Amino acid sequence: MTYLPMSVCLFLLLLSMQSYAEIKTITSPSANILVSLSDEAGIPGYSVQYRGEEIVKHSALGLEFKDTDGFVRNMHIVKSEIHSSNITWVQPWGERKQVRDNHKELSVDFVQNQKPFHHMLVHIKVFDDGIGFRYEVVKQPGLNAVEIVDEKTEFIIPDSEKTTAWWIPGRAPLIDEYLYNTTPLATILRAQTPLTMRLPSGVHMAIHEAALVDYAAMTLLQQKPGQLRADLTPWYDGIRVKTQTPFVSPWRTIHIAPNAIGLLNSNLILNLNEPNKLGDVSWVKPGKYVGIWWGMHLGTMTWSTGPHHGTTTEQAKNYMDFAAKYGFAGVLVEGWNQGWDGNWLANGDKFNFTKATPDFDLAEVTRYGKAKGVKLIGHHETAAFVTNYKNQMAEAYDLYQKMGVAQVKTGYVNDHDKVIRIDAAGIERNEWHDGQFMVNEYLYSVTEAAKRQISIDTHEPIKDTGLRRTYPNWISREGARGQEFNATWSLVANPPEHTVMLPFTRMLGGPMDYTPGIFNLAPFGLNAEHRVKNTLAKELALYVVIYSPIQMAADVIENYFEKDGKTLRPGFQFILDVPTDWEQSRALAGEVGDYVAYARKQRNGDDWFLGAITDENPRKLALKLDFLDPRKRYIAEIYRDGATADWKTNPYDMVIEHKAVKAGDMFNVALAASGGVAVRFKVDK
Amino acid sequence: MTYLPMSVCLFLLLLSMQSYAEIKTITSPSANILVSLSDEAGIPGYSVQYRGEEIVKHSALGLEFKDTDGFVRNMHIVKSEIHSSNITWVQPWGERKQVRDNHKELSVDFVQNQKPFHHMLVHIKVFDDGIGFRYEVVKQPGLNAVEIVDEKTEFIIPDSEKTTAWWIPGRAPLIDEYLYNTTPLATILRAQTPLTMRLPSGVHMAIHEAALVDYAAMTLLQQKPGQLRADLTPWYDGIRVKTQTPFVSPWRTIHIAPNAIGLLNSNLILNLNEPNKLGDVSWVKPGKYVGIWWGMHLGTMTWSTGPHHGTTTEQAKNYMDFAAKYGFAGVLVEGWNQGWDGNWLANGDKFNFTKATPDFDLAEVTRYGKAKGVKLIGHHETAAFVTNYKNQMAEAYDLYQKMGVAQVKTGYVNDHDKVIRIDAAGIERNEWHDGQFMVNEYLYSVTEAAKRQISIDTHEPIKDTGLRRTYPNWISREGARGQEFNATWSLVANPPEHTVMLPFTRMLGGPMDYTPGIFNLAPFGLNAEHRVKNTLAKELALYVVIYSPIQMAADVIENYFEKDGKTLRPGFQFILDVPTDWEQSRALAGEVGDYVAYARKQRNGDDWFLGAITDENPRKLALKLDFLDPRKRYIAEIYRDGATADWKTNPYDMVIEHKAVKAGDMFNVALAASGGVAVRFKVDK
Repeated sequence: MTYLPMSVCLFLLLLSMQSYAEIKTITSPSANILVSLSDEAGIPGYSVQYRGEEIVKHSALGLEFKDTDGFVRNMHIVKSEIHSSNITWVQPWGERKQVRDNHKELSVDFVQNQKPFHHMLVHIKVFDDGIGFRYEVVKQPGLNAVEIVDEKTEFIIPDSEKTTAWWIPGRAPLIDEYLYNTTPLATILRAQTPLTMRLPSGVHMAIHEAALVDYAAMTLLQQKPGQLRADLTPWYDGIRVKTQTPFVSPWRTIHIAPNAIGLLNSNLILNLNEPNKLGDVSWVKPGKYVGIWWGMHLGTMTWSTGPHHGTTTEQAKNYMDFAAKYGFAGVLVEGWNQGWDGNWLANGDKFNFTKATPDFDLAEVTRYGKAKGVKLIGHHETAAFVTNYKNQMAEAYDLYQKMGVAQVKTGYVNDHDKVIRIDAAGIERNEWHDGQFMVNEYLYSVTEAAKRQISIDTHEPIKDTGLRRTYPNWISREGARGQEFNATWSLVANPPEHTVMLPFTRMLGGPMDYTPGIFNLAPFGLNAEHRVKNTLAKELALYVVIYSPIQMAADVIENYFEKDGKTLRPGFQFILDVPTDWEQSRALAGEVGDYVAYARKQRNGDDWFLGAITDENPRKLALKLDFLDPRKRYIAEIYRDGATADWKTNPYDMVIEHKAVKAGDMFNVALAASGGVAVRFKVDK
Repeated sequence: MTYLPMSVCLFLLLLSMQSYAEIKTITSPSANILVSLSDEAGIPGYSVQYRGEEIVKHSALGLEFKDTDGFVRNMHIVKSEIHSSNITWVQPWGERKQVRDNHKELSVDFVQNQKPFHHMLVHIKVFDDGIGFRYEVVKQPGLNAVEIVDEKTEFIIPDSEKTTAWWIPGRAPLIDEYLYNTTPLATILRAQTPLTMRLPSGVHMAIHEAALVDYAAMTLLQQKPGQLRADLTPWYDGIRVKTQTPFVSPWRTIHIAPNAIGLLNSNLILNLNEPNKLGDVSWVKPGKYVGIWWGMHLGTMTWSTGPHHGTTTEQAKNYMDFAAKYGFAGVLVEGWNQGWDGNWLANGDKFNFTKATPDFDLAEVTRYGKAKGVKLIGHHETAAFVTNYKNQMAEAYDLYQKMGVAQVKTGYVNDHDKVIRIDAAGIERNEWHDGQFMVNEYLYSVTEAAKRQISIDTHEPIKDTGLRRTYPNWISREGARGQEFNATWSLVANPPEHTVMLPFTRMLGGPMDYTPGIFNLAPFGLNAEHRVKNTLAKELALYVVIYSPIQMAADVIENYFEKDGKTLRPGFQFILDVPTDWEQSRALAGEVGDYVAYARKQRNGDDWFLGAITDENPRKLALKLDFLDPRKRYIAEIYRDGATADWKTNPYDMVIEHKAVKAGDMFNVALAASGGVAVRFKVDK
């Protein structure tokens, strides 16, 4: 053994330190998730372990700017901080009232190795059900206006050949209105988020984002198997994000759970959004509605004026009468305004948002509704001519406020890359629906509406990243293939698995205005492609499964009656009973795209509701009623598939039965092919 | 009948003219192709008919700029001109000496309807075998520096479900090194060009571009079935093209033919390029070569230094001896320079292009070769670290010129989007291999080399758009999956159809350095995935089928001998006999991806050569020898598959036979599974 002088030792130590990467780690509160951040090779990077399994391999982080070097390489960690938080906050409306936010946060400061020594913060919040990380760039000398040309965030998944992914394509013409693919992860080229995966170990993950504000949406590009890269949707000119310091990116999120339903029982996205910025939002009202809508999709009514015009004063009053009688809060009217005649998709700049068609008297209809306690739900289809909409927005919302309209359904129908914007120089530009420009436009309509105590239900929306927490008047949105695909849109109707796919994918982002409740399931016959491919019991169960604070009874109202035109059809009672606002919610069982069962407790009430649905495969479920209050007794009002029920041949075979149940009982139910069950557990007083 | 006063008539006429689009048409010289240009709805557009069939439906044209309105809408045609040309020009080397250029040209001036009244010219050249059109923007007030953010060119194909397409993905990690897909056109998302198609009528088309200079490459994006849109590869910052007036775009080309071989017998791409700009190019020498290369791919040699280093002074001299003895013009040496040791792909900035490895004496080897009449072929692998290459380029080419090296193989191995450029501010930027920046870099290396009378053979190149006409020292390139995929690259070796696909797709652009001539077809055994999936006769036929003015005998030289190390193996004589420069060439028969037969006449000689190859299906061909000179008699030296030949089980069964033939004879031949035939028709003097 040779002894070295101390000074030599110190020198060697310092030398070796130079080549070592700095690594910072943090775990979730229960330590099931471990995240490491490092500056290895000068590149900001991270990796994630779940219960000892590496689920995200060492992956790059970084932002590249147009005119300066950005934060891509030659970076090192200079300091870091850790914070913890364990609080409970309250949702004004939602799938649960109390939301627990228990996480640890690691903030790491990456600094350039060379002049101008700019720095970037990476914040990682680690919950027991997933993680979120974001970039923060503070004000610093020489870094003011910034154009982001690339975000370098990677998500490298270890075994992409053996990982199953459920996904829709990113940046494709129909925005988010696709059927979900089930493939090995390795086969994806570009996916929208949420992108849901099952690793070979059975661990389930979903990549998404939270708090998408003043930034471009993220799609995921896979150039090499398993190497998912953030690909931000650009402006028309190719720049991804135009901003200035200080700024933050949205949170890049990963839901992590041991099984499929673990994804559903997560509050990750909401917890990563800012608290309510609107103050008192008691004017935001969840509720059920009917509307003049399905007839247009079936082709029996038109949006345009003429003999089959759907929305007339008379028809609207007719729907008001129905709504008042059965306790629906609102009536949606589409095609009420000027601009629908002719090729509205090509001439969206002709839409007028304050002028009604000659056969529709807005003042009279709203007055009529007010007398009966029913609100008109407004409608603004823009055809994605957003400058035309913005120019009229204040006046249009003022008008609605004056008329007592408290909720507006907006529409942005057009190709994904065909948002039409007129720039300051008067030049027409095409933008993507999910680029930074439109991210801001969508939110602008929400904040403008909030000033008038109006809630917004966006169709053809930007994807949901949980902004309802910050802006509770953003009450719902579409953002997936909804019911209308069962009418005449697209080549194929929604297959049985579609609604079993939605909770595990699209709805990880938030509520969806799917518009269930079609009772005439096969208006063109059972053998037609276009029909609702569910049993009637499944159609009822959707009210519990597909969460939205506003739920439509979507059929034309005549279809809720027997042939006599007076007797309500079996099952309609469930639509009348089911709430749309919940004290709490629990996914009980499920596998992605196969089946799912939810229990939800009504807000400010004692009753529980259960919805379970299956794909094309019949299935028996045994669900433990451990969510019920052991101090209470319940009558279960059950709407289940009959013995011969089958979505293809006999979708109407439904049994309605009442049973006494109590906490801890097993609830056994047989779901038909594409069947379901809807239950109200009514407290037996 | 009512008579209207003249003034009213005139008013009505003027009124109606306002709503009429201006339409300009032009036909090819034989009138088989008709192109219409219009300003319908203010949008520049065109359509194409072939023999009365609409093959491109009304499709948009246009350029969108970042800071001004560009030429997208509100345009009208103000004037047009038609020119005709029918000339013959001469290729210094090529698949034919005389090239006929017979076309009509329509030039249309589109002007903005409103201030600043900028205008754009569209030039369409219509040949009997296809069309080309380009944009021209001349200098005009208020239009100087221009950033193109989108090119609006569409190619709308009428029946995309029933049109077969042969294609590789666009903007994918391996650049052009993919196996070709055969699918309905409608299934493509993004394709590289050439994109080859067969319409339901049997008409064959291919979309590509010609004369890609100082502009971004075009990929084709299909957002709606049949609607192919130009999607120019962007700079790192999203801008597609940074230029200034005056400028022209490359020609957007459509090969059109009644059958598959019609595509092959076209001069469309060359005719749309500018004439030779280099003057006397007698120093550009087609020819055959051997090289130190295949051993590295097999893993028996290394590029890096060490005991298995491939390129040493001794080994190079050994190859020089072989080349001199058998009449090869050159010897390629890879791994001769410093920078290969370690992870060269990550450290491409360590490549030194003037410093040899210690075991390789460049001066000695070139001196040795010169004495024997053999030239060293230089090699510059850059790993796509292009700034590092550019910084050394002048010195490196000077060195080679001094050493008598007349040809350099360049390499740009790296992911498609990982070209590494250091910008003026010292910031590292990643560019795509086919963005405007690299389009210019590739050409810069060619023009710098031309100054030193050096020819360039680019690997991992920009796609070939016919610039060899303008710069004849751009002698060949790769740009597709070549022979090396049969060694150890990629999951699968090239399947039998691959070389039958190349002539109809990639090679519509120009020559390919495929490097045929592997004689040890299955170095890892017949059952290994990695092997050459051809019979030996097919491997010989590739020298005629896969056109390149430089052709390698790619195997390690030991494999051209029998076990005795002295006797040449059967078939090697064909490699010695086959020329690489041609007086004329004719595709005789073929279907895309199935089979193809070519006859070519040697330049400055009387002999004809024939090569025919098939995919995995054995096939009998009856080829009429109507290309032979009826005044001469020939001996056909035939290298054909034997009766038991089969690429899988017996690839070496080859019959060599001699037969007297004359013009007009039928030549019948049976091709084995993935077999071929190679023939020299030698004039019988």
